[in-house]
Amino acid sequence: MVLAQVVGTLVATQKEQSLEGLKFLLLRNVDMDGKTSGGFVVAADAVQAGVGEMVLYASGSSARQTVMTDKRPCDAVVMAIVDNWEVDGEIRYKKGVND
Amino acid sequence: MVLAQVVGTLVATQKEQSLEGLKFLLLRNVDMDGKTSGGFVVAADAVQAGVGEMVLYASGSSARQTVMTDKRPCDAVVMAIVDNWEVDGEIRYKKGVND
Amino acid sequence: MVLAQVVGTLVATQKEQSLEGLKFLLLRNVDMDGKTSGGFVVAADAVQAGVGEMVLYASGSSARQTVMTDKRPCDAVVMAIVDNWEVDGEIRYKKGVND
Amino acid sequence: MVLAQVVGTLVATQKEQSLEGLKFLLLRNVDMDGKTSGGFVVAADAVQAGVGEMVLYASGSSARQTVMTDKRPCDAVVMAIVDNWEVDGEIRYKKGVND
Amino acid sequence: MVLAQVVGTLVATQKEQSLEGLKFLLLRNVDMDGKTSGGFVVAADAVQAGVGEMVLYASGSSARQTVMTDKRPCDAVVMAIVDNWEVDGEIRYKKGVND
Repeated sequence: MVLAQVVGTLVATQKEQSLEGLKFLLLRNVDMDGKTSGGFVVAADAVQAGVGEMVLYASGSSARQTVMTDKRPCDAVVMAIVDNWEVDGEIRYKKGVND
Repeated sequence: MVLAQVVGTLVATQKEQSLEGLKFLLLRNVDMDGKTSGGFVVAADAVQAGVGEMVLYASGSSARQTVMTDKRPCDAVVMAIVDNWEVDGEIRYKKGVND
Repeated sequence: MVLAQVVGTLVATQKEQSLEGLKFLLLRNVDMDGKTSGGFVVAADAVQAGVGEMVLYASGSSARQTVMTDKRPCDAVVMAIVDNWEVDGEIRYKKGVND
Repeated sequence: MVLAQVVGTLVATQKEQSLEGLKFLLLRNVDMDGKTSGGFVVAADAVQAGVGEMVLYASGSSARQTVMTDKRPCDAVVMAIVDNWEVDGEIRYKKGVND
Repeated sequence: MVLAQVVGTLVATQKEQSLEGLKFLLLRNVDMDGKTSGGFVVAADAVQAGVGEMVLYASGSSARQTVMTDKRPCDAVVMAIVDNWEVDGEIRYKKGVND
């Protein structure tokens, strides 16, 4: 999975019918310190993530293993909202503190 | 999914039989401001997208989850035409305005 | 899918048994003007493509969706020979003209 | 598979329900000498790997072929803890020696 | 598929149970002249390849389409040992000659 921050939303009314009801989020990849890096992706939202939240997203066929995305033409899904992570024994990100 | 702009079309008559009837589009990836960046891909069209339109495409096995592409050797599909997106609370692209 | 030019062939007699009979092609990726760029890949041939021809190849699980590659350990397949493509309303490649 | 070192852990309480019980690890890719390189990924843990250990992880649909990750929206899994490897006949990493 | 040279082996005793019996090889990608380039990967061996041999490997779900790797958390497999390849009508690699 990849660490990213939700930075925006996207609307598309003309789409494959099975995508009806899916919410699209714009995500920016972040590094291990939680700083946004260059890459971005559009992902479906399976966990009601909000703009500004730090999340994990899964890509490829694994992106279809949620209730929201099953059998849909979706190759990236936000499947978790991150509370915190640590690297080398040190907290690098904590929700509510490093936002 | 990846944001891209439809920039062209491709014709291939000699192909795997199951691809008969699929329309191939040339897409250029765009950044969060809707500006085309270096990368491009050829994708099948599942939503009758036209040249110039801003779209989302899905890759990998997810590209076969549309009515048009099911069970076909197709690894990229345009599955939505984008109306608008916003980043950090600001509209960055709106169809008919930023085209 | 990715645009590429067939530049060579590869022979491998010692291989997974299910690959018997598959033809392996060396492909160089091309840009939107049909010029070869740095990347290359080895792909199975599902359409009897010849050296010099401009083709489309599909990757990943989609590479197994042809009669030739079904259920085989093959992650790239040439599934179409390109006749022509246009970008921004202008023909960039036409078979027999830009070869 | 890719060689990496476990460098941290991640906690996410709000997530797709099927992910309940999975442990998330932060991994840094390493080169053939076992030195960490730039890339990192978040992977599920199928083998009770600890921080500091050298591991192999699998990506994509293969990441769902463990007892822990089956049918879950998980695209990277630690499926082995590395004892040692050699390159050109020379040991480059040995657990307990090069840690 | 990708061209690579087998440069080493890897041992991992603590692993997902289904991986028991799989042999792990370290591979370095090679260019069209057979020269090793920067990238490397760890792949399962389906064809009893030896160190020094030039091989093809398949990635992703296609890496599970061999007898050795079926249903295992393995995302790269050596599925062929290369005899020779030619580019633009010229032999670039021939086993036993260019080793």
